Amino acid sequence: MSDTTDILEMLSKGSITVEEAEKALRMKPFVDLGFAKPDLHRGMRQGIPEVIFGQGKTAEQIDAISESLLESGQKTVLITRLSEDKAALLKTAVKYYKEARIAAAGIIPEPDCKGTIVVATGGTSDLPVAEEAAVTAELLGNKVTRLYDVGVAGIQRLLSHTEELMSASVVIAIAGMEGALASVIGGLVNCPVIAVPTSVGYGASFEGLSALLSMLNSCASGVTVVNIDNGFGAGYSASMINHIGG
Amino acid sequence: MSDTTDILEMLSKGSITVEEAEKALRMKPFVDLGFAKPDLHRGMRQGIPEVIFGQGKTAEQIDAISESLLESGQKTVLITRLSEDKAALLKTAVKYYKEARIAAAGIIPEPDCKGTIVVATGGTSDLPVAEEAAVTAELLGNKVTRLYDVGVAGIQRLLSHTEELMSASVVIAIAGMEGALASVIGGLVNCPVIAVPTSVGYGASFEGLSALLSMLNSCASGVTVVNIDNGFGAGYSASMINHIGG
Amino acid sequence: MSDTTDILEMLSKGSITVEEAEKALRMKPFVDLGFAKPDLHRGMRQGIPEVIFGQGKTAEQIDAISESLLESGQKTVLITRLSEDKAALLKTAVKYYKEARIAAAGIIPEPDCKGTIVVATGGTSDLPVAEEAAVTAELLGNKVTRLYDVGVAGIQRLLSHTEELMSASVVIAIAGMEGALASVIGGLVNCPVIAVPTSVGYGASFEGLSALLSMLNSCASGVTVVNIDNGFGAGYSASMINHIGG
Amino acid sequence: MSDTTDILEMLSKGSITVEEAEKALRMKPFVDLGFAKPDLHRGMRQGIPEVIFGQGKTAEQIDAISESLLESGQKTVLITRLSEDKAALLKTAVKYYKEARIAAAGIIPEPDCKGTIVVATGGTSDLPVAEEAAVTAELLGNKVTRLYDVGVAGIQRLLSHTEELMSASVVIAIAGMEGALASVIGGLVNCPVIAVPTSVGYGASFEGLSALLSMLNSCASGVTVVNIDNGFGAGYSASMINHIGG
Amino acid sequence: MSDTTDILEMLSKGSITVEEAEKALRMKPFVDLGFAKPDLHRGMRQGIPEVIFGQGKTAEQIDAISESLLESGQKTVLITRLSEDKAALLKTAVKYYKEARIAAAGIIPEPDCKGTIVVATGGTSDLPVAEEAAVTAELLGNKVTRLYDVGVAGIQRLLSHTEELMSASVVIAIAGMEGALASVIGGLVNCPVIAVPTSVGYGASFEGLSALLSMLNSCASGVTVVNIDNGFGAGYSASMINHIGG
Amino acid sequence: MSDTTDILEMLSKGSITVEEAEKALRMKPFVDLGFAKPDLHRGMRQGIPEVIFGQGKTAEQIDAISESLLESGQKTVLITRLSEDKAALLKTAVKYYKEARIAAAGIIPEPDCKGTIVVATGGTSDLPVAEEAAVTAELLGNKVTRLYDVGVAGIQRLLSHTEELMSASVVIAIAGMEGALASVIGGLVNCPVIAVPTSVGYGASFEGLSALLSMLNSCASGVTVVNIDNGFGAGYSASMINHIGG
Amino acid sequence: MSDTTDILEMLSKGSITVEEAEKALRMKPFVDLGFAKPDLHRGMRQGIPEVIFGQGKTAEQIDAISESLLESGQKTVLITRLSEDKAALLKTAVKYYKEARIAAAGIIPEPDCKGTIVVATGGTSDLPVAEEAAVTAELLGNKVTRLYDVGVAGIQRLLSHTEELMSASVVIAIAGMEGALASVIGGLVNCPVIAVPTSVGYGASFEGLSALLSMLNSCASGVTVVNIDNGFGAGYSASMINHIGG
Amino acid sequence: MSDTTDILEMLSKGSITVEEAEKALRMKPFVDLGFAKPDLHRGMRQGIPEVIFGQGKTAEQIDAISESLLESGQKTVLITRLSEDKAALLKTAVKYYKEARIAAAGIIPEPDCKGTIVVATGGTSDLPVAEEAAVTAELLGNKVTRLYDVGVAGIQRLLSHTEELMSASVVIAIAGMEGALASVIGGLVNCPVIAVPTSVGYGASFEGLSALLSMLNSCASGVTVVNIDNGFGAGYSASMINHIGG
Repeated sequence: MSDTTDILEMLSKGSITVEEAEKALRMKPFVDLGFAKPDLHRGMRQGIPEVIFGQGKTAEQIDAISESLLESGQKTVLITRLSEDKAALLKTAVKYYKEARIAAAGIIPEPDCKGTIVVATGGTSDLPVAEEAAVTAELLGNKVTRLYDVGVAGIQRLLSHTEELMSASVVIAIAGMEGALASVIGGLVNCPVIAVPTSVGYGASFEGLSALLSMLNSCASGVTVVNIDNGFGAGYSASMINHIGG
Repeated sequence: MSDTTDILEMLSKGSITVEEAEKALRMKPFVDLGFAKPDLHRGMRQGIPEVIFGQGKTAEQIDAISESLLESGQKTVLITRLSEDKAALLKTAVKYYKEARIAAAGIIPEPDCKGTIVVATGGTSDLPVAEEAAVTAELLGNKVTRLYDVGVAGIQRLLSHTEELMSASVVIAIAGMEGALASVIGGLVNCPVIAVPTSVGYGASFEGLSALLSMLNSCASGVTVVNIDNGFGAGYSASMINHIGG
Repeated sequence: MSDTTDILEMLSKGSITVEEAEKALRMKPFVDLGFAKPDLHRGMRQGIPEVIFGQGKTAEQIDAISESLLESGQKTVLITRLSEDKAALLKTAVKYYKEARIAAAGIIPEPDCKGTIVVATGGTSDLPVAEEAAVTAELLGNKVTRLYDVGVAGIQRLLSHTEELMSASVVIAIAGMEGALASVIGGLVNCPVIAVPTSVGYGASFEGLSALLSMLNSCASGVTVVNIDNGFGAGYSASMINHIGG
Repeated sequence: MSDTTDILEMLSKGSITVEEAEKALRMKPFVDLGFAKPDLHRGMRQGIPEVIFGQGKTAEQIDAISESLLESGQKTVLITRLSEDKAALLKTAVKYYKEARIAAAGIIPEPDCKGTIVVATGGTSDLPVAEEAAVTAELLGNKVTRLYDVGVAGIQRLLSHTEELMSASVVIAIAGMEGALASVIGGLVNCPVIAVPTSVGYGASFEGLSALLSMLNSCASGVTVVNIDNGFGAGYSASMINHIGG
Repeated sequence: MSDTTDILEMLSKGSITVEEAEKALRMKPFVDLGFAKPDLHRGMRQGIPEVIFGQGKTAEQIDAISESLLESGQKTVLITRLSEDKAALLKTAVKYYKEARIAAAGIIPEPDCKGTIVVATGGTSDLPVAEEAAVTAELLGNKVTRLYDVGVAGIQRLLSHTEELMSASVVIAIAGMEGALASVIGGLVNCPVIAVPTSVGYGASFEGLSALLSMLNSCASGVTVVNIDNGFGAGYSASMINHIGG
Repeated sequence: MSDTTDILEMLSKGSITVEEAEKALRMKPFVDLGFAKPDLHRGMRQGIPEVIFGQGKTAEQIDAISESLLESGQKTVLITRLSEDKAALLKTAVKYYKEARIAAAGIIPEPDCKGTIVVATGGTSDLPVAEEAAVTAELLGNKVTRLYDVGVAGIQRLLSHTEELMSASVVIAIAGMEGALASVIGGLVNCPVIAVPTSVGYGASFEGLSALLSMLNSCASGVTVVNIDNGFGAGYSASMINHIGG
Repeated sequence: MSDTTDILEMLSKGSITVEEAEKALRMKPFVDLGFAKPDLHRGMRQGIPEVIFGQGKTAEQIDAISESLLESGQKTVLITRLSEDKAALLKTAVKYYKEARIAAAGIIPEPDCKGTIVVATGGTSDLPVAEEAAVTAELLGNKVTRLYDVGVAGIQRLLSHTEELMSASVVIAIAGMEGALASVIGGLVNCPVIAVPTSVGYGASFEGLSALLSMLNSCASGVTVVNIDNGFGAGYSASMINHIGG
Repeated sequence: MSDTTDILEMLSKGSITVEEAEKALRMKPFVDLGFAKPDLHRGMRQGIPEVIFGQGKTAEQIDAISESLLESGQKTVLITRLSEDKAALLKTAVKYYKEARIAAAGIIPEPDCKGTIVVATGGTSDLPVAEEAAVTAELLGNKVTRLYDVGVAGIQRLLSHTEELMSASVVIAIAGMEGALASVIGGLVNCPVIAVPTSVGYGASFEGLSALLSMLNSCASGVTVVNIDNGFGAGYSASMINHIGG
């Protein structure tokens, strides 16, 4: 029962004039007109996890937000960028993923859509970013296959997983240094590839700039890119795409 | 009838030894083992258009490739980055999209999947990139809605299209200068957003760098980014995602 | 007479139901709910010039927009980034400012506020940007004093104008190369300084980057910065500030 | 009673010759000729706070400067970039603003002009910069409204504050990451907007570069920019502008 | 005894059909077809050291990998980017090169090819990178001559070693700051020069960028470049080249 | 007879009061107090050439400035960045230096100080910048020795000129690409070296950035740097230094 | 018969004193002491082609240099960066390689060493750089195998040439955009790989910067890099390496 | 008594043949031919201090070098970039300049030339760099005048020192942030100005890049630039210039 309805009914009943109604509407147009987010919110109440950015918040603050979300009907809550120390202090968290630096509160969901998301990395140093992507995707209800350390300098390691790659509905390609993994995978598969440059490297990698530019210039079609080290963003986008298929 | 089959049959018949078979296979492993692209190719023969990058090729060269593709069963051929002058010389092209600088050969396809791709731009100068994205998506079998000149400096222009945005299965957000459009749309919608920075601007836009960095740093989840001015790449990725939904 | 009023009056008269009114309002919330820009528009109808970005538009297009603005009650129309050739083809323009590359349609306004805007440049090559700023400010109803070629390498040239600077309500400091002018003026005056880096220079000026960084790092308080070569933006902001004083 | 007056009176009384007077004046032209700053200084003695940059100074040094300013008639003294530890050692400070890292000595002033400065931030991490801007503005005699965490990824949060924004005389828009807030606010309001990029973000935010470029490229008129994280500079400039209106 | 052989023998014996053999081969083409690396691996078993990147691995992990390599017939194992503390914990290491931060397990090889690699540095601060290059080359079976601190600002120091330089089969030129050493050496010698920019320097050296750009722009023919501080890469490439000569 | 003297004499005679004198002095402090430039101007009247930046000025404008300078007693006038076409139209020019793009009006001066300036270049493509430096220095009264094409990739070319270098009072080292010349010369000589990076090169020379960074990072003491391609600035500074020696 | 010999013989005969001999030698140490380049020159006279950089030289100048080289016994002369128009005017050239923009004067040499250089490119647009590398290598006496358009986005194209790659003594890997080719090839082969980034691409390729950084960060050992578009440099270095093998 | 003399005398006496003499000379041309540095070295023995770069050396190492220099006749030794802790351990040092982080061994020299070097800074934070420059110049035998905290935002502070500036033979202008000081001083004085950008600042100062670019683009003639924070280099170059005047 929104304010707009109230105002209109008051106008309809003659309790207020047209001018008064017009002014009242003008004063709070965004609260009650119901565009944009409400659908999203509704969607979320139906089971899609809400996300709390853990960095810079105290354990108490996180618990408070987490509790209020769970009480409002949210089934799962993701807490990202969370140190192990802080995670140990959380009361609401039911599981902590150390590599991913993610905690989950509420229910750990089962996969709720058909497709599989493949998370591939160039090297073992890319693992924290990869786990952030993989755990995000899992907690958002996706099946995830991990293909780690399949960098292009040993192309046969990657090619030996052609079948997993070919059967994915989305691939997240994670690599630092020269970031070539995204292009090679983009050329092998038929599905969308989300590339995540990492800050792994030294010297002319310039904290991930090299991999970022490589991935943006990928000569393979179907490759899009997120920010350096943004495993969460890749997992979130991949989940969105994967759920389109039902 | 591939060479592998030949070799195996010769082995099966005893014409060659196991060692000879092994050596023969080792010598050309990639020609006939049929991984990766063939599935894609088969997919393409079922109706997905093939793409020719028109820049740097003569009209004759384009016609030759185009004809051979059509003869091999390809129904539609896209020719991108094609100047109007060169397009006029093409014999195989059935339609030229001037703003998009794309020509189509073969059959102009009808939409073959349910969802709609919204192509939104910040300003009128982003139009060539937007049309490259939109026409690419259309020729790949997608319904496309164009929302042009809905830049964030007049946010009500964008918000008046909330309904179109909310009903999209993918949104392509195209903007130069500060590139804020991607973030605002990413916050409004529930579907994947592909952001395309454009080189529109001057001074500190540094040929699209400003918009590119903005989009990579989008505070909205679900936004991925392609190269500056890469309308084709965005249209191609959006089509991939849109077709996942059937 | 807005649509909102129409809808509300129809509801008030019982011609439509509350539900119908609510739905109608929801469908076009931004056109007629009167937030944000309408106040601006009203302000504009009271005499503030509207601006047309001339670059990339034909003379016919500019004339059409210009005419429609003048017909709707707009008294003055600015057309920026307009080449001399195109200006010669315009029917609606009453004056062309060659250096500023700006044309005016409608009435050339008299200053309508008390303060004075000083436009200062480091060198003579900054003149086109300076004139864009100065003419913009004049056509927006400001008194403008021009102090050109008062670069810091000959500090006495600048200091001999201390009185004009001290009596300004806003100063626009325009300089390329090392962009030191903004800091020196910022230290001399008591009013807001808007700094405009220009692309004048060569080598390590990197198309205005050097001046831009200088100005952003100004050690003087009260200095804010606009994009490289953005004379229009500086003139517009200065006018906003100058009009605060009535 | 300046030296110049002394010299001139000595000349007037015949105690020195014209040549001696001329030479005396030439030797110290900037001390006593009273250009530029004196008006500012006078203004300051009338109540405008003086500012001490706290970083790199000891508590004793700050106290000494602060005391001498207060003794010379200064009513309020701002001490910026001051750590909590050092603030605890200050004898002259009457109040410490922890988030803003600012201390005040002397009298905390009441607002002395009509307009309101709105300080808006994209996220909660921008808070320290925002408080530096807000407290600076308050201590310089301005009414300040804080609108924090109204980033463009949830545009309705921002729009629900349209009224506060519309009634501001200046808006300070503070954001890291993609910095889109400045453009969206610039399009909503009719008053000057001072944009402050922050170093909040990671990867391709490049320590605030992304937000800085975005803001410089703002497609909204009336937006000017200060250095990354320069909350003080924004508050100072906003106060200057706000006081023009009386 | 690879899977491929198994499959082929089963086919040869009639245990499986040609179709079954073909499908089996298609499923794991990269595991057993033996392209690419096997030759390398074989080469390595013949004495070329294997390399373990020590950084980010525990002493236990390194020992485990090292042992397994030695057991499989590897004669020498290089462990790079290894801190002194961690080296002290290694059981498999037979020698630790402190400056180079490299440990060797197995046998320290004698030079096994005719040519000499000269490792030259501009200054003494480049020594750790130089030792990484030199020790890598030595452990890969090369004779190495060290010419340290022969920077171009004292050109006679370099020129007094003309003979050593002239008799090298490869020169590794290592320098930070302005990186001029590569060009000067490139002009003196008749053999390939591998340039290694170092992050030695401050200010406008931008962590090695200055030396990197210098070396890429070398006006001397025969100079190629590796990543900043990549002593290992230079030593490895130099060894490859040196071994071509037998 | 300056205004200050007039005012003081009027005060001395009692024609004006102390207050009137003080006010009069305050109004034009920079015109007549005789600091800074006047000494310079006097110096110039004694024979030091005045410089006109020719680019962006018409032949008529240049002639007018040139004539007025010559009439005021200036013996030589330099006109820099002057195209051959425009030079042909000049009436005041007595000589045009095509490579240097400099014209001279008035008298071509003889060397008026003892020392010699050596202008050295890395390659033949640096010649225009070198000639701008050399001709500037000559027209400012210096003896100049040209050592062109002595780049460090053929170090013996440079070293064969050790004697000329050793006897210079200032060396201007001009180089593009890797800019190593400045360091090598800086190590050979005992006098100040002014380094001029040029935009000669391609790819990673980034329009002179590579040479600029190299020169700023020179490991030789006594090297200072000017802007990319700034031959004039180097010639001017070198002349200043050379004249110190008398 | 060098000057040094003359001086020594004069000393030996007593025509000059030890002091006179010492002084004479000191005055021209680099002309006649025969270090460094002379060996190279001698080498060149034995058949290694001399190179003329054609850009910026007239046909007459090139012919003059070319003739003098041929007369002095040089068998082959390479002229690089030569436009077709200018090549048509050359009298000394016996063959022009249009794609490579190289002309040859004298004798087109046969391969004079055993190994093969493979020149591989990512795309067809990299062809001019590839031909510059390939023709340079051929004219320096090498066998060259061209593998064009084997970019990593279609990895099977590259892998189908594994045999050619495996049998190379040096591989030149040429690619623009993301430059991943160098890493993939570096992982496949056992020989030195020289990577050439090209300026092919747009937007975030930043004129070759993206490919350059990628290649410098290659995760494969044995990869070294030359300047953007420097086909000649790669061909020259590859030839040096290839000739080591005899 | 050099080796060259020995060889020549042996030849003169007939102990060796001309051929033997020639070969002997060719083998070590740079040790004894006495070009370049010897003159410098002689100069140094006449009193010019030698410099030891203290950073990265132990107190023992520094003492050893210092002692050997003093024993060889060197009167003064500068030790730069030396921490207070390490300085306390030095036995040879006779004085430590804390702000400058420089120690002196041997004799503290008196000024040995006529001119004065002015060291000016924009702010108090630039002091360490300024003291490094000033102490370097003093220990190299120059009179130094310090003008600290005369930044351009309070131009009268600088102008009140016009006389000191005008009487300098060289000015070292040191500033961070926007680096405008160099241009303003360059316009005031008639002598060479050496500009030192400092890393003082934050945000868009990018660790001194802003000041560096500003100074390179100085619109004043006679300004040359050294590396960021390179106080030593500026002091050394200034001393070279100052000593030209005798």
